[in-house]
Amino acid sequence: MTNQQNKYVYSFTEGDGKARQLLGGKGANLCEMTQIGLNVPPGFTITTKACLTYLDQNNTLPDGLIQEVKDQMSALEKATGKGFGDAHNPLLVSVRSGSAMSMPGMMDTILNLGMNRETLQGEIEQTGDERFAYDAYRRFIQLFGKIALGIDDMHFDEPFEAIKKREGVKEDVGLSAENLKEIAALFLDVVHAQTGRAFPEDPYEQLELAIKAVFGSWSGKRAVDYRREFHITPDMANGTAVNVCTMVFGNRGNDCATGVAFTRNPGTGENVFYGEYLVNAQGEDVVAGIRTPKPIAQMETEMPEMYRQLEELRSKLETHYSEIQDFEFTIEKGILYCLQTRNGKMNTQAMVRTSVELVEEGLINKEQALLRIAPESLEQMLFPRLDPNIKVKPLATGLPASPGAACGHVVFDADRAVAQKKTSGKPLILLREETKPEDIHGFFVSEAILTSRGGKTSHAAVVARGMGKPCVAGAEGIEVDVMARRAHIGDVVIKEGDMITIDGTSGNVYLGEVATVEAEFSEELKTLLSWADERAHLKVMANADIPEDAERALKYGAMGIGLCRTERMFNAAERLPIVLEMIVSDTLEQRQDALDRLLPIQRQDFIELFKTMSPRPVTVRLLDPPIHEFLPSENQLIDDLIQLRHLKDTMRGSEVLTATLSLLSTKNGALQPIQQLADSSLVDEAIEKKEAILKKVRALFEVNPMLGHRGVRLGITFPEIYAMQIRAVLEAACACQKKGIEVHPEIMIPQVCTSEELRNIKVHVEAIRQQVEESEGIAPIFKFGSMMEVVRACMRAEQLAEEAEFFSFGTNDLTQATFSFSREDAENKFLPMYNEAGILQDNPFEVLDANGVGKLMELAVKWGRGVKPGMKIGICGEHGGHPASIRFCHSIGLTYVSCSGPRVPIARLAAAQAALLDS
Amino acid sequence: MTNQQNKYVYSFTEGDGKARQLLGGKGANLCEMTQIGLNVPPGFTITTKACLTYLDQNNTLPDGLIQEVKDQMSALEKATGKGFGDAHNPLLVSVRSGSAMSMPGMMDTILNLGMNRETLQGEIEQTGDERFAYDAYRRFIQLFGKIALGIDDMHFDEPFEAIKKREGVKEDVGLSAENLKEIAALFLDVVHAQTGRAFPEDPYEQLELAIKAVFGSWSGKRAVDYRREFHITPDMANGTAVNVCTMVFGNRGNDCATGVAFTRNPGTGENVFYGEYLVNAQGEDVVAGIRTPKPIAQMETEMPEMYRQLEELRSKLETHYSEIQDFEFTIEKGILYCLQTRNGKMNTQAMVRTSVELVEEGLINKEQALLRIAPESLEQMLFPRLDPNIKVKPLATGLPASPGAACGHVVFDADRAVAQKKTSGKPLILLREETKPEDIHGFFVSEAILTSRGGKTSHAAVVARGMGKPCVAGAEGIEVDVMARRAHIGDVVIKEGDMITIDGTSGNVYLGEVATVEAEFSEELKTLLSWADERAHLKVMANADIPEDAERALKYGAMGIGLCRTERMFNAAERLPIVLEMIVSDTLEQRQDALDRLLPIQRQDFIELFKTMSPRPVTVRLLDPPIHEFLPSENQLIDDLIQLRHLKDTMRGSEVLTATLSLLSTKNGALQPIQQLADSSLVDEAIEKKEAILKKVRALFEVNPMLGHRGVRLGITFPEIYAMQIRAVLEAACACQKKGIEVHPEIMIPQVCTSEELRNIKVHVEAIRQQVEESEGIAPIFKFGSMMEVVRACMRAEQLAEEAEFFSFGTNDLTQATFSFSREDAENKFLPMYNEAGILQDNPFEVLDANGVGKLMELAVKWGRGVKPGMKIGICGEHGGHPASIRFCHSIGLTYVSCSGPRVPIARLAAAQAALLDS
Repeated sequence: MTNQQNKYVYSFTEGDGKARQLLGGKGANLCEMTQIGLNVPPGFTITTKACLTYLDQNNTLPDGLIQEVKDQMSALEKATGKGFGDAHNPLLVSVRSGSAMSMPGMMDTILNLGMNRETLQGEIEQTGDERFAYDAYRRFIQLFGKIALGIDDMHFDEPFEAIKKREGVKEDVGLSAENLKEIAALFLDVVHAQTGRAFPEDPYEQLELAIKAVFGSWSGKRAVDYRREFHITPDMANGTAVNVCTMVFGNRGNDCATGVAFTRNPGTGENVFYGEYLVNAQGEDVVAGIRTPKPIAQMETEMPEMYRQLEELRSKLETHYSEIQDFEFTIEKGILYCLQTRNGKMNTQAMVRTSVELVEEGLINKEQALLRIAPESLEQMLFPRLDPNIKVKPLATGLPASPGAACGHVVFDADRAVAQKKTSGKPLILLREETKPEDIHGFFVSEAILTSRGGKTSHAAVVARGMGKPCVAGAEGIEVDVMARRAHIGDVVIKEGDMITIDGTSGNVYLGEVATVEAEFSEELKTLLSWADERAHLKVMANADIPEDAERALKYGAMGIGLCRTERMFNAAERLPIVLEMIVSDTLEQRQDALDRLLPIQRQDFIELFKTMSPRPVTVRLLDPPIHEFLPSENQLIDDLIQLRHLKDTMRGSEVLTATLSLLSTKNGALQPIQQLADSSLVDEAIEKKEAILKKVRALFEVNPMLGHRGVRLGITFPEIYAMQIRAVLEAACACQKKGIEVHPEIMIPQVCTSEELRNIKVHVEAIRQQVEESEGIAPIFKFGSMMEVVRACMRAEQLAEEAEFFSFGTNDLTQATFSFSREDAENKFLPMYNEAGILQDNPFEVLDANGVGKLMELAVKWGRGVKPGMKIGICGEHGGHPASIRFCHSIGLTYVSCSGPRVPIARLAAAQAALLDS
Repeated sequence: MTNQQNKYVYSFTEGDGKARQLLGGKGANLCEMTQIGLNVPPGFTITTKACLTYLDQNNTLPDGLIQEVKDQMSALEKATGKGFGDAHNPLLVSVRSGSAMSMPGMMDTILNLGMNRETLQGEIEQTGDERFAYDAYRRFIQLFGKIALGIDDMHFDEPFEAIKKREGVKEDVGLSAENLKEIAALFLDVVHAQTGRAFPEDPYEQLELAIKAVFGSWSGKRAVDYRREFHITPDMANGTAVNVCTMVFGNRGNDCATGVAFTRNPGTGENVFYGEYLVNAQGEDVVAGIRTPKPIAQMETEMPEMYRQLEELRSKLETHYSEIQDFEFTIEKGILYCLQTRNGKMNTQAMVRTSVELVEEGLINKEQALLRIAPESLEQMLFPRLDPNIKVKPLATGLPASPGAACGHVVFDADRAVAQKKTSGKPLILLREETKPEDIHGFFVSEAILTSRGGKTSHAAVVARGMGKPCVAGAEGIEVDVMARRAHIGDVVIKEGDMITIDGTSGNVYLGEVATVEAEFSEELKTLLSWADERAHLKVMANADIPEDAERALKYGAMGIGLCRTERMFNAAERLPIVLEMIVSDTLEQRQDALDRLLPIQRQDFIELFKTMSPRPVTVRLLDPPIHEFLPSENQLIDDLIQLRHLKDTMRGSEVLTATLSLLSTKNGALQPIQQLADSSLVDEAIEKKEAILKKVRALFEVNPMLGHRGVRLGITFPEIYAMQIRAVLEAACACQKKGIEVHPEIMIPQVCTSEELRNIKVHVEAIRQQVEESEGIAPIFKFGSMMEVVRACMRAEQLAEEAEFFSFGTNDLTQATFSFSREDAENKFLPMYNEAGILQDNPFEVLDANGVGKLMELAVKWGRGVKPGMKIGICGEHGGHPASIRFCHSIGLTYVSCSGPRVPIARLAAAQAALLDS
């Protein structure tokens, strides 16, 4: 025997089932199956180390390898009672590659190796089935010719098809033994012609050539390209093993069969035996679909003993692997062989159900159950989706901006959406070029949103995600003509009322109604997530701006609201005009007047939010976006003014007026209800208002709005705006407290870059707190904290921690500032190219950049907690719902993550996994 | 005696001259002067500690203080031979406040304390001068009444003026002894009427009240406001001392005199005695300007002994203080007293000259010489400035965008500027609403630039600073009408050719020619800066984009070019059209064709730069700004198109054409020379070109250009652009090397955020290096480095250091990203308010924010040098020329700073000071 150091070959009975790097995944698995007592056909594995040595030595097999192989073959001969090359009872083997990672592009399997003119006769002798033997022979010649000798399939297919044509048969099974004999002879000629020498007759020569071909394929172009494409590095898989296995046949009579099975139903997770089989058939017959396989249950009556053994195998597999198995078996002459097993691929529902049931059955523990499921996959269960069984061609494709699928009748503007919903009640899909805050009432009555412009951060996308409604954004092929109430997609015209279906998970848009499958927030999922919450260190909060969002978030298991964007509360038809008034006002008095009218509205919002979430915390972020975001665009206003002036010029009677009403209703939004435009003085008034807004839009213009006059900078410039919001929070808290409702509001300041800003705002908070406490007669309970979305805030975390009771990383903005990437610009312009060129592995706006942004966060956490040990520090923004990012948040010791409501379950599972993987 | 612990009063002979916090600046100075043997009138100082105790104890004098004062008064009586309250030979004293820092708003001096009805007679007896005595008496009553008793001056001024009127005298000196006697009596009545009690006769009561009044003034509103306004914290000055000093009089006869003097000429620094005096006069007479003082030299003949003593005093002062002194003296009856001395305030020329001469005279060493001068003040010597003796009212004021003053004839567009310069050769000032790259040829021929829009970072400001030309930007009162060739400022009209003067240091604009003083880069300054270079650790480089800039930078002592912005090289009339072609081209071929034409131009620029700077390093930054910055604005193009189309419609003959030529010449820039617009087909062509550019402008639109598609992101998207620039650098290097010229070019990549970007560019650099080496037959010498202007670059400094040979912090962009402030927006919108509200002490775009941006830089330096010890790391950008920022750069161990040429001397001095203060 060779010593361990230079041992290159392991029998299935001796190889370590865990040694995937050395034996490849397939080899290790065969060893494991053999060693736990499954009836695997005997065989052995040549190591990846042998492969690397072979390649290193300029395609020379390592010393001693052939001898080891010969020793193993002798052992196979002994075990099977057959002889390799034996003319009477020949041993046939399969040869296949197998690296540590499954890798398409590696070579295929060679079956029936060991056949030659002599052993062919032995096979006929043994089976008494000439057709079977010639069939096996011609298959071997082609596979070996192609794989080991590099002959193109074309050379074999041509004579094969010619004979089929001559014989008038369509399927291979129609060929007779004579035909196959003729084919085998032709194939041998092909090999001779293509390689310049005869087909190798010596089985050991066959075996050596096959082994070298497998080794060589590791450095072949296809495999190298694949590894580069999928970033497979040597530490993941290095070299390929070769598995040599005794052939077994399911097609040697009616006491033979072959099949594939799952230990449980992979579609539902139900604990029933699931699979199908064919009597007297080969594995490829099951796959090819020529004969219809029978459901596995039928075997119980057809082959009862075999079925009993299969059931035993099923149970043994689950017990050993603690996982649902997808396995292949062959029955040869009444003997059951297990050829392969692997973890069963299931849809998410089945994964969740089996996770819970495997725990209940004692096969796995709760930790294993939690680690079994990819958090991201839960999305399947949380949103309606297109029926996966239906295949339809999409009409257009945009960006998958908010997940879920929905069907509805197209409507082109928000006002008409509201009207139609009232009258018909039918499901609607709002289709617009892009949406604006003034369209918000249209969102409420629509099932889904579709836009032809804008990206994943467009208004439509962000609002739809917040509401949990499906959205496809920026479907560029669609041309929307609002005034004509129709859209064009190429030659297709969509009119108002036409039915369409959109899939916000894929970005596809379909004409007509496509069946959807409802979301299933199953009992098993609830159980699983309750286990997750027990293990997780991170709390999971939801981003929710209005009471409806909060209710939904609670259903998803949110432990509080981590981000309530108060400006979103302004986006309602009856509120926007007041907000506009506030912005356009030239004096503090005018502004204060508008704010006084907003106060009771916002207070009532908070009361409802706090009640809904009681006793959980609700983090309220004060006004953040630059105020020009509430205003129409300059171009829009100029257009409006041109049309209003034209209207005024041509105004002669109500006919003209009527003709322009629809125009005004869409352009004019909520500012100037169309009913009032009854005479020209009202048109004058509308012009005046538009002009005032236009003036303001120009005054507020910013070169880089992302880095502009926003967040706390607004709060300090216009203290009365923040004062109104602070008062609304504190009065709402008092109102709840007086009714015995436990509330934990947290006031959060956006865009902070220095502790002086926090001190400045705190002065107002304290003054208002005193006033409220006096007038309400009760001390409002609340916390005061800072967003960490400006780089400087991170650098000054120590100083900020002196002022703030909590921090919340706004990783959307922080990522923009850290990279100096404007998200809107980057995603449209150079980020795709950066991903493609491998300069950035991921889109940092989707996957938190641990190396840059994360490093900054880690420093800020360290510095902040250095001053305030155990400080509450969280993250809000889209990364808060992304599993890998959540793992990072766990690793730097954050207190919580906050994400959009529908992603809360995903985050809960990811948080648990982070804790489990860390411990 | 009280023990030291509770000692509140120090005689001038015992107080520590360094104990400014305890004794106040004035008190410590009086002690110091006394102890070095100057003849200071005897006196003592009550400590600031006594003041704080007084205020703490609710305005009660500390125990034992009065006794200490009395002991000191006894000592004064002994020293002077006079008695405090003595009816025959009375001792009079002055009482004045003095804290550690000079602080207007503290109380004035009380003179002649100790006078009452009795001692008045004693004064008359002693001096034989009734008028003198009554004059002293009435002064004392008023000063004491006002300062110690809080009576408004108005109550004294009214009767005083009434008597002057009655007597028909204009000046106080016209009043007789009788008049003054009457006034004194009236003043005593005023005090009685205002305070309800008689004027205190007891000198000790007077003294106690005066001390309490001084102490109280420390917590008075004026003083508190002043300290808040100027950020004077308790560690800078806490409490005020009280100085009690024997009165001496320069107005007791012709053997008396008073004067002020500088030990050297403060206007030039020349080592001559400089000052003036009056015989038989009081200090305030010198200041009041009623009598004309005589130059000090005249005393040599008028009072030779006194002059000899003064010369002795002058020499003693300089020797002791090692600094030019500004001192006050009084001669009483042939005895010279020194009343006060302080460091002389001088203009920069004088400071520089005296610094060098004091070293030559051995009075100070070079280190002291270097530390004497505020680096910023050198600006006075480096730019022409308005003659300080001329006072003119400015016509308008804008932002001081580039320092220096200049006069010239107004011209409103660049083309006309070039033409006029050619024909008349007269000095010009280019006045525009704002400037664009296509105006650059106008900059070259103008003395200065004036714009009515834009800030300190506008095109005009940045380019003018780079060229060292004065610029006033954003002078908002000016309305420019280019087509009519005139501008309005209120009612004033400025026509083309009118003379104006601008001062880029103050931002003022004047009508007509205002005399200016030339810059003086004196020999002394050269000497001083050579000493600075010996001490500094930091090297000082210049930002220079074109060979002319480089030559100027060399004169200022630049040790290399730290930043050559290659895109600035594109800004020339004959180059911009090629750049436009490159940008507008739709195919790689078109783009490459334009680049091929730019290559020889850019290579020639580099050859000249490298030659000029040889053997110093030249750091070349590859293309940085978003390419749309080279294009006209969308609105500009739309306007142009409207006018071109109108021209096409109305084109009937050459008259119309001529009428529109001027319009086109200003709007159309270099793209389409107006001479070619001879027929309508050429107009069509112009329209087509404009439309193509407009399309490109719209395609390139970015929401946040600061965070957009620029720098290395462009270099990776359009590798052919960077390839051209890299090739130009390397071929230029080879060209110089072949001629034996030593060159050290450094290729610098902007906007880097990840080391992958550097690796990507390095591949191109290496390929081009090989090609150039082959074709030129010589290996180009160069370095490869990275800008550090993206936050993530700092966080990834370790990884970047693996790829880069040097780093250069771009603190302009880094500050924007760290604060999330867009400079253009912030400086116009909220930064002034942030400064005012004390949220930010400084504008972080002018003063490097050490706490935030600086902390990030410090980490990046640590991380980068951890990988590459001793790595060359510098800073370019405007902070590189700012003294406090330079000090910070020194403190974190940077290798160099780079700033605009004219600031190089300032930076050199600041670098030396940083090193000296650190050692």
